[in-house]
Amino acid sequence: MNDINDNARARVIVISSTGKHFTAGMDISVFTDGEGVSAGSGDQYARAEAFRQFVLTLQGTFNCLDNARMPVIAAIQGGCIGAGVDMTSACDVRYCTEDAFFQIAEINIGMTADVGTFPRLCKLIPEGWVRELAYTGRRLTAQKAKEVGLVNDVFATHAELISNVMTLAAEIAEKSPVAIAGSKRMINYARDHSQADALDYIATWQAGMFAPPHMAEAFTAKSQKRAGAFPDLSPLKKRM
Amino acid sequence: MNDINDNARARVIVISSTGKHFTAGMDISVFTDGEGVSAGSGDQYARAEAFRQFVLTLQGTFNCLDNARMPVIAAIQGGCIGAGVDMTSACDVRYCTEDAFFQIAEINIGMTADVGTFPRLCKLIPEGWVRELAYTGRRLTAQKAKEVGLVNDVFATHAELISNVMTLAAEIAEKSPVAIAGSKRMINYARDHSQADALDYIATWQAGMFAPPHMAEAFTAKSQKRAGAFPDLSPLKKRM
Amino acid sequence: MNDINDNARARVIVISSTGKHFTAGMDISVFTDGEGVSAGSGDQYARAEAFRQFVLTLQGTFNCLDNARMPVIAAIQGGCIGAGVDMTSACDVRYCTEDAFFQIAEINIGMTADVGTFPRLCKLIPEGWVRELAYTGRRLTAQKAKEVGLVNDVFATHAELISNVMTLAAEIAEKSPVAIAGSKRMINYARDHSQADALDYIATWQAGMFAPPHMAEAFTAKSQKRAGAFPDLSPLKKRM
Amino acid sequence: MNDINDNARARVIVISSTGKHFTAGMDISVFTDGEGVSAGSGDQYARAEAFRQFVLTLQGTFNCLDNARMPVIAAIQGGCIGAGVDMTSACDVRYCTEDAFFQIAEINIGMTADVGTFPRLCKLIPEGWVRELAYTGRRLTAQKAKEVGLVNDVFATHAELISNVMTLAAEIAEKSPVAIAGSKRMINYARDHSQADALDYIATWQAGMFAPPHMAEAFTAKSQKRAGAFPDLSPLKKRM
Amino acid sequence: MNDINDNARARVIVISSTGKHFTAGMDISVFTDGEGVSAGSGDQYARAEAFRQFVLTLQGTFNCLDNARMPVIAAIQGGCIGAGVDMTSACDVRYCTEDAFFQIAEINIGMTADVGTFPRLCKLIPEGWVRELAYTGRRLTAQKAKEVGLVNDVFATHAELISNVMTLAAEIAEKSPVAIAGSKRMINYARDHSQADALDYIATWQAGMFAPPHMAEAFTAKSQKRAGAFPDLSPLKKRM
Amino acid sequence: MNDINDNARARVIVISSTGKHFTAGMDISVFTDGEGVSAGSGDQYARAEAFRQFVLTLQGTFNCLDNARMPVIAAIQGGCIGAGVDMTSACDVRYCTEDAFFQIAEINIGMTADVGTFPRLCKLIPEGWVRELAYTGRRLTAQKAKEVGLVNDVFATHAELISNVMTLAAEIAEKSPVAIAGSKRMINYARDHSQADALDYIATWQAGMFAPPHMAEAFTAKSQKRAGAFPDLSPLKKRM
Repeated sequence: MNDINDNARARVIVISSTGKHFTAGMDISVFTDGEGVSAGSGDQYARAEAFRQFVLTLQGTFNCLDNARMPVIAAIQGGCIGAGVDMTSACDVRYCTEDAFFQIAEINIGMTADVGTFPRLCKLIPEGWVRELAYTGRRLTAQKAKEVGLVNDVFATHAELISNVMTLAAEIAEKSPVAIAGSKRMINYARDHSQADALDYIATWQAGMFAPPHMAEAFTAKSQKRAGAFPDLSPLKKRM
Repeated sequence: MNDINDNARARVIVISSTGKHFTAGMDISVFTDGEGVSAGSGDQYARAEAFRQFVLTLQGTFNCLDNARMPVIAAIQGGCIGAGVDMTSACDVRYCTEDAFFQIAEINIGMTADVGTFPRLCKLIPEGWVRELAYTGRRLTAQKAKEVGLVNDVFATHAELISNVMTLAAEIAEKSPVAIAGSKRMINYARDHSQADALDYIATWQAGMFAPPHMAEAFTAKSQKRAGAFPDLSPLKKRM
Repeated sequence: MNDINDNARARVIVISSTGKHFTAGMDISVFTDGEGVSAGSGDQYARAEAFRQFVLTLQGTFNCLDNARMPVIAAIQGGCIGAGVDMTSACDVRYCTEDAFFQIAEINIGMTADVGTFPRLCKLIPEGWVRELAYTGRRLTAQKAKEVGLVNDVFATHAELISNVMTLAAEIAEKSPVAIAGSKRMINYARDHSQADALDYIATWQAGMFAPPHMAEAFTAKSQKRAGAFPDLSPLKKRM
Repeated sequence: MNDINDNARARVIVISSTGKHFTAGMDISVFTDGEGVSAGSGDQYARAEAFRQFVLTLQGTFNCLDNARMPVIAAIQGGCIGAGVDMTSACDVRYCTEDAFFQIAEINIGMTADVGTFPRLCKLIPEGWVRELAYTGRRLTAQKAKEVGLVNDVFATHAELISNVMTLAAEIAEKSPVAIAGSKRMINYARDHSQADALDYIATWQAGMFAPPHMAEAFTAKSQKRAGAFPDLSPLKKRM
Repeated sequence: MNDINDNARARVIVISSTGKHFTAGMDISVFTDGEGVSAGSGDQYARAEAFRQFVLTLQGTFNCLDNARMPVIAAIQGGCIGAGVDMTSACDVRYCTEDAFFQIAEINIGMTADVGTFPRLCKLIPEGWVRELAYTGRRLTAQKAKEVGLVNDVFATHAELISNVMTLAAEIAEKSPVAIAGSKRMINYARDHSQADALDYIATWQAGMFAPPHMAEAFTAKSQKRAGAFPDLSPLKKRM
Repeated sequence: MNDINDNARARVIVISSTGKHFTAGMDISVFTDGEGVSAGSGDQYARAEAFRQFVLTLQGTFNCLDNARMPVIAAIQGGCIGAGVDMTSACDVRYCTEDAFFQIAEINIGMTADVGTFPRLCKLIPEGWVRELAYTGRRLTAQKAKEVGLVNDVFATHAELISNVMTLAAEIAEKSPVAIAGSKRMINYARDHSQADALDYIATWQAGMFAPPHMAEAFTAKSQKRAGAFPDLSPLKKRM
C-alpha cells in the first residue's frame, strides 16, 4: 500500500477478495502458538509495554489505507469478519453483495476489538448500531449495512459488485488527482476536527493546491466532450 | 446505578417502564414550588453560579448510565418525553414499541434542554433531525426513530419488546465482562476523540486488559458448544 | 444575514429560490476574468498567502448562517450544486422537492471544495456518502438525500415544499426565541466538542438564560389554548 | 473539601502542614499489605480493569481541590514528596519555606506517578524541568521552584510563610466571591481549551454572572475606604 | 487594525502610549450610564443572551491584534491595567519600562476579567502567577514581569523603551513578510493545537508559502551585505 | 534512532556533538541543487502536494526522538542553529555550555521554520520569547536559555557538560525502564491533552504497567544500599 501511495502508481485503489468470504476472521493459531501476542523478553510489565506497541504496529497495517493519498474502495462479498471490519472501515467507501455480512467477531472470542474498528466505525454508522454489534457479535446483513450507511450500495452478485465498483473507480480516476487527494484529506481532517479548524485547514491547503489550470482543462474537456487530462500525483521521496 | 456498577452486580442493565408511557415529561410542580430551580441564599448572581452547579448535578444523574462499566439498554413504550430523551440518549442501545415516540419537550415549555439531550443526541442521529425536533418539540415516531438510527428496532407490543430486549441482554451477559467493558469504554472514548487518539487509547487499554485466557475459554466453549465461563468484573473500592 | 441577526428582526429565516434550480453552480467567468482568484500584488508566495485569506473570506459568507441566532431553513428545488451544497449545509434544516438533487460539483471542474462543504457535510451524512459524492461529482437524488439524513423530508412540488417549510417556520416562531437561540447554540457547540465539554457549556449557558417566566408563560398559554407570548431577542450592539 | 465547597463555608482554603515535612511520601505498607493495590476478586484482567478505576478514584481525592469553587493555597515546608506533588499541583497557588523541596519520588520506587502530577505539573513549570524531575527523582529546591514558577514566593521560616499566606488569603476573601469563582473557573478552563473556546466560554459565563451591583459596591467601598460587602457563594444542592 | 492588516500597509505594528500610564483602567462611567452593559430591549433573559454577544464583540476589538498577519509589539510604560492586560496579552511581544506594572484590575471592581486576559495570559506566564494576580488584583512589577516571561525586556526610560522597540520593529520589517506571517500563524496555531496537528498544519502551509526565491534573495543579500528585498504581503479582498 | 528504540538497546540516549558548534545550520546546497525541495514530476500543484508530504517526512526524522521509549538528552555547545533547534526541541531535556546559543535561523534565510520548532518550542519557553526569536532570528544566549527554561543547566566547558550529562544519564539508566517509559509517555501525552484526558490515560496505562514487583525491588535495593535491578524494555516486533 505504501509503495503504491508513495510512487503515485494508482489514482484509486480497489480491494476485493475471492471465494465465499471477503475475510474469514482471526487465525486461531496466532494465539495458540503465542508468536503473535507474546512480545519478547522482559517481565510481565515490560511485555505489557511492548504489547501496547505491538497493537500500535498492527493498527499501522490499516492506517495506511486511511493515509493513502488516493481513495480506497472495498468490494465485499460474504463474511467481513473481525479484522475485515477493522480493514474496511479504514477504506473510503464500501460496497457489497447481497450475501455479505459484517461482524465485530472479537467479542465472540473474548476480546475487545483493537485494530481500528471502534475509532472508525463510530464515525461511519449510528452509535446504537456500533454498540449492538460490539456487545453481541451479531451479524449485520448487507441490507441493514446499506440502511445504516456502512455500505453505499448492495449488488446481487460478485460479478455485478466488481463491475460497478470498477466503473466507480474509473470515474474517480478521470478526475484531477490533486483535487481528489485534497478532497480525501479534507474529509479525513473534518472527521477529527472542529468546523472552525477544518475551514481554516482547507483554506491553507488551497493556498498551494488550488489549481486554475486544472479548472481550465476541466472546462475545456467538458466542452470538447472528452475526459480531462490531469497530471498524476508526484512520487514521494523515500520515507525516513 | 452507581451501586450496581461499583459492586459489579450485573453484566448488563435493562431500563424499562410500565404503563402507557415510558416517561411522562417534566413535573410542573418542580417549577411552581420553586424548590428545584432556586438555589439557596445569595443574590441573583450567587444564585446563578449555584444554578450552574445544580444543572451539572442533574446531568450527573444520567452520566452514571454513560459511565457504567456494563451496557445499559433502554426498552421504551409510549411517550419518551423531555428528560426521557436525556436519559435514554445516555443509554447504550434503545429499542421501542410501535406506539413509542420521542419528544424534546423542553422547547414547548420555554426552555433549552440542558440535562444531556444535545451533547448526546447530536452523536446519535443526523443533525438535521436533532434541529427539527429541538426547534419544534414535534414527536419523532417509532418508525422514524428507527430510520434515523435512534432505536435499533421496533416491536409490536410491550411484551415483545421486553422479550427481545431480555434476549439481547442475556446474549451480552454471556460474553466476557472485561471485553464488554472494554468495548463500551472504547466506543465512549471514540465518540469524543480523534481517530489517532482513539487508536492510541485502545492499544494502551489492551496492555492490561487483553486476556489470552478469555480467548482460550471462548474457543474451548465454542468447540464444546457451551457458553463461555468468564470471571465477573471486580467490585470497585469505595468512591471518595 | 448579519443585519437580520444583529437586529433580531426575525425569529426564523427561510432560504428558498425560484426557477428550475436552487443554485446553478459556479459562474465560470469568476475564473476566466481572474478577478476572483488572483489576489492582488506581490509575488506567487504573497499571492498564495492572500488567497488563503480570500478563501477564509468566502467561507465567511456562509458562516453567518451557522452563526445566526435564529434557525435557518433551506427549501430546495432542482439542482443544489457546488456552492449550493456549501450554503445549505450551513443551514439548520433542509427540505426539498422530488426533483431536487445535490452535487459536490467542484471535483468535476478540477478543484477541491473549500467553502464549507467538507467541514459541514461530514457531520450531516454518513462518511461513505460524503466520499462517494466528493470523489465522483455524482448527483444525490432527493430520495437518497432523505435516506441519508441530508434533508428531513421531500415534497412533490415547489408549492408544497414552501407551504410545509413556512408552516414549520411559523411553528418555530411561536416558541421562546431565547430558548430557540439556546438550542441552536447547544447543537452547534455539541457538534464540535466532547460530551463533557458540551454538558459543562450548557450548564454555564443556563446560569443566565434559563427563564422561569418563559416556562410559566408556556404553561399558562397551553392551559389557555393560545400561543405563548415571549419577548424577542435583543438587538445587538454594533459590530467592531 | 467537597463539604466546604458545597456548603460555601469558606471564601478561600489554605492547606498547610506541621512538622519537618509537608508530606512524607508514600506509606510503604500500602504496598506490602496489598490492600491498596489489589482490587478485589476476578482474574488478572478483571483486577486490571478494577485497578484502572482505583487510580481514577485516587485521582478524585485531589481533583476536588481543582474543582473547588474557591481558591486553594498550599503553604509548604520541608519535603513535598510523591503524592505531595500530586496534591499541591492541584492547588491554585503554592508558597514555601527556604528549606522546602519537591520530589517526584515515584520513579525512585519503581513506578510512574499517576495521581495527577504529570497532567498538572506539565502546565505549571517548563517541560524540561518536569522531565528531569520525573526521570531522576531529584529534589527541586525552594529557590529553583521559585525560578521555574512552581511557587510564587519563598519565605525564611514557617511562621513567616503562614503569616504571608494568611494575609494573601484574607485579601482574596475580601473580593466578590462570585467574581473569584468565575476567575478560577476561567483559568481552569483556559488551561485545557483553545483561545477561541475560552473566549466563548467566558462570554457565556458572564451572561449570568456579570454583576453590576457588585461593581457598584466595589466602587462605593473604595470611595469610602472600606472593604466591599459581597454576598457569599450559594450553598449547593446535595450531590447525586 | 483591520485596515492596516487587510491593506498590508505595514510589516510590523508597534503599540505605544504617552503619559504616565500605558492604560488607565476601566472608565467607570461605562457602568454608571449603563450604556455599555445594558443590551437593548427584551426581558432579563433576552438581555442576558445579548450581553453574551456584547462580550464577544468587545473581545473582537483585541482579537484583531492576534489575527493580524504582521507582528504586533507592545511598548508599555507605567500602569497596564485591566483592559490594558487584555490588550497587551493579545500582542506578539511585550517590552516595558522599569516603572511599568500589570494589574488584572477587574477583581478589584467586583468582576471576572472577560475580554481575553485569561485565555491568553494562561499561555504567557506560569499558571500560579495568573492565579495570584487574578484573585488579588495585585500589581506585577516590571522586574517580576520579566522574570515570569510576560515582557521580554525592561528599559530604564520611555525613550529607551521606544528606541529599542523601534530597532526591533525595523529588524522584523527587513525579513520576508510572507515568512514572518507564516511564523506568526504557526505560533498562534501551535498554542491551541496538539503537536501532531501543528506539524501537519505547517507542512500544509508550506505547500503554498515555502518560497525558494525568497531564500535565494536572502542568501544573495547576505553575501552582498545588504538587506534582502522581499515583496510585501498582498492586500486582501474586502471583508464580507 | 528507531533501531535503538525498537530493540531496547539503551535505557537513555545522549545526543552530543563535537567541534565549535552543535549544529551549523542549513546546508545551502540543499536549495541550490534543487534536489531537496523539488519533489518529482507533475505540474506545480502536484509538486506542491508532494512537497507537503516531503515536509512531513523531514519532520519524521525528529519525531523519532519524541516517540522514543527512552529519554533523549541533548548536550549542546556553540551554535544550535536552524534544524538544531528543531532537533533539540524534540529531545526530553537540554543542557549546554556557556558559549552555546540558539537561533531560529530560518527567518534569516527567508523561510518559516517547518520541521518542528514551532509545535515544540511553544510548549518549552514563554510564547513572547518564541515570537522574538522567530521574527528576528536573534541568538538566544545560554544564560537566557536557562532563564526561560529551554535548558536546565549551563556548564563552563564541553567536558563539564558531557560529564554532567553522562552522570544524569547514568542516574536515569538505574531506574525501572518501564516506569521511565511510562513517565515519558505521560509527559508527552499531557502536553497535548486536557487534564481530564491525561488523568484517564494514566489510569488506563497503569492497568497494565503498574508493577508491584518493581516497587518491591526498589525498596529492597534501597535498604541494601544498592542500585535496583529492573528488567529492560522488551524489544519490539518489526515495524510494518
